[in-house]
Amino acid sequence: MATQTTINKDELSNLSFILNKVNDVTFEERPKPSIQSPHDVLVAVNYTGICGSDVHYLTHGAIGHFVVKEPMVLGHESAGTVVEVGAEVTDLKVGDRVALEPGYGCRRCGNCRAGKYNLCPKMIFAATPPYHGTLTGLWAAPADYCYKLPDSVSLQEGAMIEPLAVAVHIVKQATIKPGQSVVVMGAGPVGLLCAAVAKSYGASKVVSVDIIQSKLDVAREFAATHTYVSQRISPEDNAKAILELAGIPNGADAVIDASGAEPSIQTSLHVVRTGGTYVQGGMGKSDITFPIMALCLKEVTARGSFRYGPGDYELAVELVASGKVDVKRLISEVVDFKQAEQAFNKVKEGQVIKVLIAGPNEK
Amino acid sequence: MATQTTINKDELSNLSFILNKVNDVTFEERPKPSIQSPHDVLVAVNYTGICGSDVHYLTHGAIGHFVVKEPMVLGHESAGTVVEVGAEVTDLKVGDRVALEPGYGCRRCGNCRAGKYNLCPKMIFAATPPYHGTLTGLWAAPADYCYKLPDSVSLQEGAMIEPLAVAVHIVKQATIKPGQSVVVMGAGPVGLLCAAVAKSYGASKVVSVDIIQSKLDVAREFAATHTYVSQRISPEDNAKAILELAGIPNGADAVIDASGAEPSIQTSLHVVRTGGTYVQGGMGKSDITFPIMALCLKEVTARGSFRYGPGDYELAVELVASGKVDVKRLISEVVDFKQAEQAFNKVKEGQVIKVLIAGPNEK
Amino acid sequence: MATQTTINKDELSNLSFILNKVNDVTFEERPKPSIQSPHDVLVAVNYTGICGSDVHYLTHGAIGHFVVKEPMVLGHESAGTVVEVGAEVTDLKVGDRVALEPGYGCRRCGNCRAGKYNLCPKMIFAATPPYHGTLTGLWAAPADYCYKLPDSVSLQEGAMIEPLAVAVHIVKQATIKPGQSVVVMGAGPVGLLCAAVAKSYGASKVVSVDIIQSKLDVAREFAATHTYVSQRISPEDNAKAILELAGIPNGADAVIDASGAEPSIQTSLHVVRTGGTYVQGGMGKSDITFPIMALCLKEVTARGSFRYGPGDYELAVELVASGKVDVKRLISEVVDFKQAEQAFNKVKEGQVIKVLIAGPNEK
Amino acid sequence: MATQTTINKDELSNLSFILNKVNDVTFEERPKPSIQSPHDVLVAVNYTGICGSDVHYLTHGAIGHFVVKEPMVLGHESAGTVVEVGAEVTDLKVGDRVALEPGYGCRRCGNCRAGKYNLCPKMIFAATPPYHGTLTGLWAAPADYCYKLPDSVSLQEGAMIEPLAVAVHIVKQATIKPGQSVVVMGAGPVGLLCAAVAKSYGASKVVSVDIIQSKLDVAREFAATHTYVSQRISPEDNAKAILELAGIPNGADAVIDASGAEPSIQTSLHVVRTGGTYVQGGMGKSDITFPIMALCLKEVTARGSFRYGPGDYELAVELVASGKVDVKRLISEVVDFKQAEQAFNKVKEGQVIKVLIAGPNEK
Repeated sequence: MATQTTINKDELSNLSFILNKVNDVTFEERPKPSIQSPHDVLVAVNYTGICGSDVHYLTHGAIGHFVVKEPMVLGHESAGTVVEVGAEVTDLKVGDRVALEPGYGCRRCGNCRAGKYNLCPKMIFAATPPYHGTLTGLWAAPADYCYKLPDSVSLQEGAMIEPLAVAVHIVKQATIKPGQSVVVMGAGPVGLLCAAVAKSYGASKVVSVDIIQSKLDVAREFAATHTYVSQRISPEDNAKAILELAGIPNGADAVIDASGAEPSIQTSLHVVRTGGTYVQGGMGKSDITFPIMALCLKEVTARGSFRYGPGDYELAVELVASGKVDVKRLISEVVDFKQAEQAFNKVKEGQVIKVLIAGPNEK
Repeated sequence: MATQTTINKDELSNLSFILNKVNDVTFEERPKPSIQSPHDVLVAVNYTGICGSDVHYLTHGAIGHFVVKEPMVLGHESAGTVVEVGAEVTDLKVGDRVALEPGYGCRRCGNCRAGKYNLCPKMIFAATPPYHGTLTGLWAAPADYCYKLPDSVSLQEGAMIEPLAVAVHIVKQATIKPGQSVVVMGAGPVGLLCAAVAKSYGASKVVSVDIIQSKLDVAREFAATHTYVSQRISPEDNAKAILELAGIPNGADAVIDASGAEPSIQTSLHVVRTGGTYVQGGMGKSDITFPIMALCLKEVTARGSFRYGPGDYELAVELVASGKVDVKRLISEVVDFKQAEQAFNKVKEGQVIKVLIAGPNEK
Repeated sequence: MATQTTINKDELSNLSFILNKVNDVTFEERPKPSIQSPHDVLVAVNYTGICGSDVHYLTHGAIGHFVVKEPMVLGHESAGTVVEVGAEVTDLKVGDRVALEPGYGCRRCGNCRAGKYNLCPKMIFAATPPYHGTLTGLWAAPADYCYKLPDSVSLQEGAMIEPLAVAVHIVKQATIKPGQSVVVMGAGPVGLLCAAVAKSYGASKVVSVDIIQSKLDVAREFAATHTYVSQRISPEDNAKAILELAGIPNGADAVIDASGAEPSIQTSLHVVRTGGTYVQGGMGKSDITFPIMALCLKEVTARGSFRYGPGDYELAVELVASGKVDVKRLISEVVDFKQAEQAFNKVKEGQVIKVLIAGPNEK
Repeated sequence: MATQTTINKDELSNLSFILNKVNDVTFEERPKPSIQSPHDVLVAVNYTGICGSDVHYLTHGAIGHFVVKEPMVLGHESAGTVVEVGAEVTDLKVGDRVALEPGYGCRRCGNCRAGKYNLCPKMIFAATPPYHGTLTGLWAAPADYCYKLPDSVSLQEGAMIEPLAVAVHIVKQATIKPGQSVVVMGAGPVGLLCAAVAKSYGASKVVSVDIIQSKLDVAREFAATHTYVSQRISPEDNAKAILELAGIPNGADAVIDASGAEPSIQTSLHVVRTGGTYVQGGMGKSDITFPIMALCLKEVTARGSFRYGPGDYELAVELVASGKVDVKRLISEVVDFKQAEQAFNKVKEGQVIKVLIAGPNEK
């Protein structure tokens, strides 16, 4: 489907994978969306990755104050093919293959106007209640949130752009510079991608830390220059061991927590050097025990990272196109749309790194 | 003494106020220091303020891993008069009145060379073990750490430059810009000075928060546009009340914790707006319960602040000289050198904002 | 008109002041504009200032590649009163008095999304061909480009917000910090406002430079701490004299050229200190003789400044509301709408600082 | 010599290559230097590269206001072997191979303290009058200006660290980020190194521009993704051709002028995109015709770049050690010390990229 230049949208299914309530999903042929503005495009979804947040909605029905009250289409890590363009769209044409950025700012609030649309209070984000997600056949979106994939990037790689953009944003928040040392806590998909992006930013040492050796084996092969299995010792002692292992006695220039785990965050503050940077990228408990004086006395710069903003998708596409981040290696499996529930189960059970679900129109 | 241009250092006393061990202080005439390098100057100390850290050494004998093992001269907030200059000193002359910056970096490590000498691991800092402090008659120091006071700034104001430089550094870390809203947690000397410096940076709203109404009365008169007495309610609720009071529904652009108190720090993270800045300036417990997801999801930038660095003393002097920060209003009392112990007791008991101790050569 | 809360727009005139071709202007009752989007508001224009660019279009018919080919309404420095709000507008209501930001980005290009809408290639800007300006009765605009004036700011002051926002943007580009020294080349309206904004940013020395003493007299009264009449000597010698006058032997921390004049720009590069900042704010010749090695060897940071971006209008309103910039002092005269042509002539002849033209519905 | 750990400095020659006056050089056995401070080391110079500035002193006797009045040892691009260490040196030991940073700040002025020692007005710089250079046998230097070479970096590569550090500093001034497009004007040694460093910063497109095709051939092989031979057409037209060639219709994110040539600088301002960055790295005429309105209207950030500062040498060593910049490819020839004059002639005639001169103690 991907290479033809005229596509008859009427022939396409809009079958969707819907979360009704906790652990209750169905497939449903939903009404086809249409372009709402001359700046929009209509996209046939080709592949969608499963994110931990999707699984969390499935198993808990909520994330924080976002609660699933009505049936909601899941999924937000997608690539697709343009099947229709609005009258004022000039940068895309029918047949273009695109990565979909799944959240749209209001374009009018202070954050949007200041280039921080990820912080827009009116953000419309796919598969975040009350908005439907992208595990569906057709998706209408503003053209400027659809990023054309170069020929060298496949649609399956395109579905990896969303988590890669998350990692790009985290690494930007960490202001990593060539020659620096970076510790990444957590070797799940985002942690792995952070390690690779940090390397593409020129980091000379990238240490991946996790509690599971097999994940670290992937990290080493994928991007890390060093790996460390967290021990059941104090955060200070884990930090000491990490720094010794990596040969950075004065501490790491930057630490990224991509785990959300309390001990990892604590270790992060002891791993970072005086004057260094720590970024909280992973989600976890609202409140934790935190070594605040380490932050104060070492003059650490700490930043949160939330989704992605201007330029992040563009850079993610470029990193894949240039071969700097080989996202293919993180795709464990690609399944048919009708296998969506089984795919979710595999992610839930931690058997896989990333599973892609083909769109309902993929053959 | 201050205005004469030739001073006979041989006639000056070097009487010093010494902490022997916890709650054990004495006065002792110590050997006069001499210039160690052609870049040094010798200064007769005129006035010295008492800092909370001085009191803490007095009552606890240690701060963190800095432990008083040998008798140590206390004091580090001083102004004095130059009585001798080294051969290569060109910017100061005998008789110049100066504010003393009490900590010297090594000038050779990575932090010193990169303009972060406050983070120098070899820092020599007055009244931090094992180094003697400035509650003494004569003080030898590198000339570039002695800041000439303009005629319009008195030596008593000069002794306030050190805590003001602390506040300047904190406010710089908070990257406050004109028109912004700033919340300052804590209305002790540093909190008060932070409020005033924030205002001089153009902040349009400066909210001082404390648990003691009388301190807030000072804050209001000194610099704050709004004040709030912290209640025994949740940090979220205190934050909500602060924002309502100040009319900043979206949160404060910057929050400075100058208290070190756990509930204040927690409140800080709920007061700061999405994309805002929080600076930890106050010292307190090493580890606290911390709302880490507020930092993450709001993409807060958090920074520690430790002492002061390049340009901080210069700006502190300028803020006093220009009348933008009226440090005189924070001087509760000036006592004779021999009253040093009594002065420490007053600070310990919280009866005063700032007490200055005249040097042993002041009449 | 300004204080009532219901306004009958049908009773309002849409009389407009139109540039037909070079030096050929007319008044014409044009069709009333209407709200184009639920995010728009309709504003009755109360006052409009005359900008040098308006005069340039009048006398030359073009600025650079912007050429007046069709009759065009002039004017873009306006304040008005909201007479109608679109369905989705929540921040403004009928009767609100607003400063009008006269240029709208496309909200979709890379620059708009990155918070640099002033650099949007599709910018729609009032009184820049082919777009009509604000010397008219009614103006329809996106609500987020209309800034509510607090009660303490008059509509006449509101018309000064546009040039003040220009100055705010320039001063932001100059990254001025408290305690710094700033030289402003040119004491026309924008130069004067730059001096005042620099001061509100905490600059301790603000030197205004011009070739006309009377303008410098205004500068001194308005904001400058020092003034200098440019001499017919080399740029190096003028720079030396400026630095000596202001007592900044090592050079100015920041220099703003608000003149566009070749000798001023040359002097700027010799006035700025090693490591300092120079901002080009004024328009002038496309190509000039420029001391490029001064920029290189002193590691000067040079920046252009073009119009205004996110936060600039908000800060301009705040600076007026707080009394930090007293724009009233720059309003030389306020004339009736029918006196628009005479007002333009006065500006052209340099008799005035700023003239405001009342809207056609002002009595 | 390089690998032994005890070296008898008494057996080493201090033969030096001396510029007496314009085009008049001699060899002379000069008195051996000794360590002046416990923080110093004594280094036997192994290899020294020839810089354009060395040649300029040879042929003109001056650069700007730096005039050769007394005989001066030439050379400042050196690597050597530590033969003696001062009492307080802990990071280096006898036998260590080091790259020499040839300029020392005063460590006490505002620029040095703020981390900008390259802007120190008291800078002592090798082979800049009145200071001798490094084309000599023994060199005494502060240990913190000597950078240990890892085993994987040869001493000949070590002599390339100085020009590489120049390029590192330029690229830092250009704030290049992954995925960006960079144009480098000039393909001499510094331009070539800038192209390589830009690539190591993640630039996705690096366009080298020169007037000589053979230099561009080297650039393409070394680092550039695109090359362009400057034509005798207007700067605007050259810029247009460069952007078309590289497929960056909106302009380059960053432009580095490493040529100092007037037409290149003019082209730079037309090549850079709206909101982009231009860095002047190359030396040339003091004053040139410059498209100032391009800078203003496009809000270009322009920066000078002068020598190198904190972290630049460290990163240069790391880029060579990691294989990211293969400086060996730029070494055209290595000659004996006694061939120094002939080597200078080759550089003068432009026959080579970089020539290294072995130290007088090299066999």
